[in-house]
Amino acid sequence: MAYMFLVLPALSCATAISERQMSAQENTLQKSRNEQEGDHRPLVLVHRLPTFSLLSSDSLLIHFRLLDPVASAADEPLQEFLPRHGQSIRALLCLGPTPLKADILDLLPSLQLVAACSAGVDHIDLAECHRRGIAVTNAGTAFSEDVADYAVALLLDVLRRVSAANRFVRSGLWPQKPDYPLGSKLWGKRVGIVGLGSIGSEVAKRLVAFDCRIAYNSRAKKPSSPYTYYDNVCDLAVNSDVLITCCALTSETRHIINKDVLTALGKEGIIINVGRGPLIDEKELVQYLVQGEIGGAGLDVFEKEPYVPTELFELDNVVLSPHLAVLTPESFEALHELVIANLKAFFSNKPLLSPVRLD
Amino acid sequence: MAYMFLVLPALSCATAISERQMSAQENTLQKSRNEQEGDHRPLVLVHRLPTFSLLSSDSLLIHFRLLDPVASAADEPLQEFLPRHGQSIRALLCLGPTPLKADILDLLPSLQLVAACSAGVDHIDLAECHRRGIAVTNAGTAFSEDVADYAVALLLDVLRRVSAANRFVRSGLWPQKPDYPLGSKLWGKRVGIVGLGSIGSEVAKRLVAFDCRIAYNSRAKKPSSPYTYYDNVCDLAVNSDVLITCCALTSETRHIINKDVLTALGKEGIIINVGRGPLIDEKELVQYLVQGEIGGAGLDVFEKEPYVPTELFELDNVVLSPHLAVLTPESFEALHELVIANLKAFFSNKPLLSPVRLD
Repeated sequence: MAYMFLVLPALSCATAISERQMSAQENTLQKSRNEQEGDHRPLVLVHRLPTFSLLSSDSLLIHFRLLDPVASAADEPLQEFLPRHGQSIRALLCLGPTPLKADILDLLPSLQLVAACSAGVDHIDLAECHRRGIAVTNAGTAFSEDVADYAVALLLDVLRRVSAANRFVRSGLWPQKPDYPLGSKLWGKRVGIVGLGSIGSEVAKRLVAFDCRIAYNSRAKKPSSPYTYYDNVCDLAVNSDVLITCCALTSETRHIINKDVLTALGKEGIIINVGRGPLIDEKELVQYLVQGEIGGAGLDVFEKEPYVPTELFELDNVVLSPHLAVLTPESFEALHELVIANLKAFFSNKPLLSPVRLD
Repeated sequence: MAYMFLVLPALSCATAISERQMSAQENTLQKSRNEQEGDHRPLVLVHRLPTFSLLSSDSLLIHFRLLDPVASAADEPLQEFLPRHGQSIRALLCLGPTPLKADILDLLPSLQLVAACSAGVDHIDLAECHRRGIAVTNAGTAFSEDVADYAVALLLDVLRRVSAANRFVRSGLWPQKPDYPLGSKLWGKRVGIVGLGSIGSEVAKRLVAFDCRIAYNSRAKKPSSPYTYYDNVCDLAVNSDVLITCCALTSETRHIINKDVLTALGKEGIIINVGRGPLIDEKELVQYLVQGEIGGAGLDVFEKEPYVPTELFELDNVVLSPHLAVLTPESFEALHELVIANLKAFFSNKPLLSPVRLD
């Protein structure tokens, strides 16, 4: 459910992507051919914050002309750029968590498709898109495996104190202090998954192999799921040693993990968040952690990224990461292919591959 | 395969153990009854380095009298203590990696059982025990789940850079550097397991749930195993993205991961060691890591514990921990019950629960 950050210059990613990229020379030739032939490539507007760079645009450029206001006119506000250039734009590529609300949509009267590069689309005004008949696609399941792997990684790290142990060894303290504190066993733990979508299901599949007992909460019971269903998160928390939040951020799920849920989870309880920061009432969570009212936390997402409450920096039972659960070269490549496939499908009037339900 | 460190004052462990312990009061009553009845509890010698404390001896004391030279005579060498007290000793409880060789066995002419508290027993001279008709028991499979969990934790941490990301966030750098380097996907990785015993099998079971492709090397092909077998570690390494060492340390497996294997594993290869430090030629491994000739490492064990090569402290692609893969309160409790069960079986002439093969 995490955002896809299309950021420069992530070296290992760039390396992986380059394997399937056409070489720069080939692209230049292709672009030259396109130009000679009158360039029939459809136009796609790139919508991004200046901090989100469009990495690996070459394979996109084979199929599409990209209009990138940030690159084209660094100092020109969208409110001036779009009225001049955006009137005929039918498709928009939305990078990372760049907000897309009515103010921008108003400037794009021909828009029919928003291709988002993230699994979660809470930065896009879906109701407004629906009202205007604009389709939205997201990253689909391109990130599900990586996010699920990362949820398990955070859980193992918190329970078994991997990062804390690593700090301990690197500090050179082991010879002086042989009695490193014990971690806690994963085997047999009761794990409550908040949101049993594609990511939650992948998390469950992995944790079954560790003989964890899985339960879940979601909008409705999933008839095909073998796991115990709780229709509210508090009941799930009471019956869980661990909660893992994997659901989409919506007005219903904002602060779904609140004070009551944290109390229900209890002093030994662990919370893992690979969804969105605002799924948890962060202020309450920090208090619970600082006061030892909860057992530990593994957090990849935060309410005000990139700002992380500094009270957490001192706690050994907390593992923090900079919203990277989705980020591997492999998932990046899968996303890249999916975005191109969605745009190609749109421009040839074929069914979209990963449409977001808007009703 | 890692040692069991019976260390004081690991708080969380002590807490967990106490749940199944008789209360101090009950124990005192039991001891008093034993004394009134002439105390028929069999005598067990505790063999430990002074740094390894006997945690939670109360439930042992219900069944056995413990003779602990370290506690009894802190300054008296075993060579003086045992000739006076050890002549009739039939059973010895060996804590952690405390060496047990012929020099000690010579002083225990009545010894018939060595109950070790670790899975690996390379600190015990098994050939000498065999020659003298002394049975040896170990931790059996009490630690297998925890060690397997920890192997997966280390692998996920190295691949997805969890500890490094945690350091990055705690350093406060995220707001200045949004472009954190990508990790690498676990899904689909080719994992070679060195030693498909109880721990290796548990590792494989877990990684199958991440859709890894499992192969292994062991002394002989396991007819019941569904995984690909390689009869030498170099071939396994050539065909693996990750190697996980889970085998016992013997004269045959010392430095089983040598320069040739590391070269075969290659520049992107990851090595995880939850077995024993000397399974890997550590000097070579450090060189390969420092020079970037291998992709990364997760190491819970080292050649000269508690000393860890300081060159590793600077590397973000290395995760280090202080030999704690076996250590959870739950596995500790399982070990405790197993040790008592082995000793009780021995003293009542019943089959031992976790005998070590000595031939």
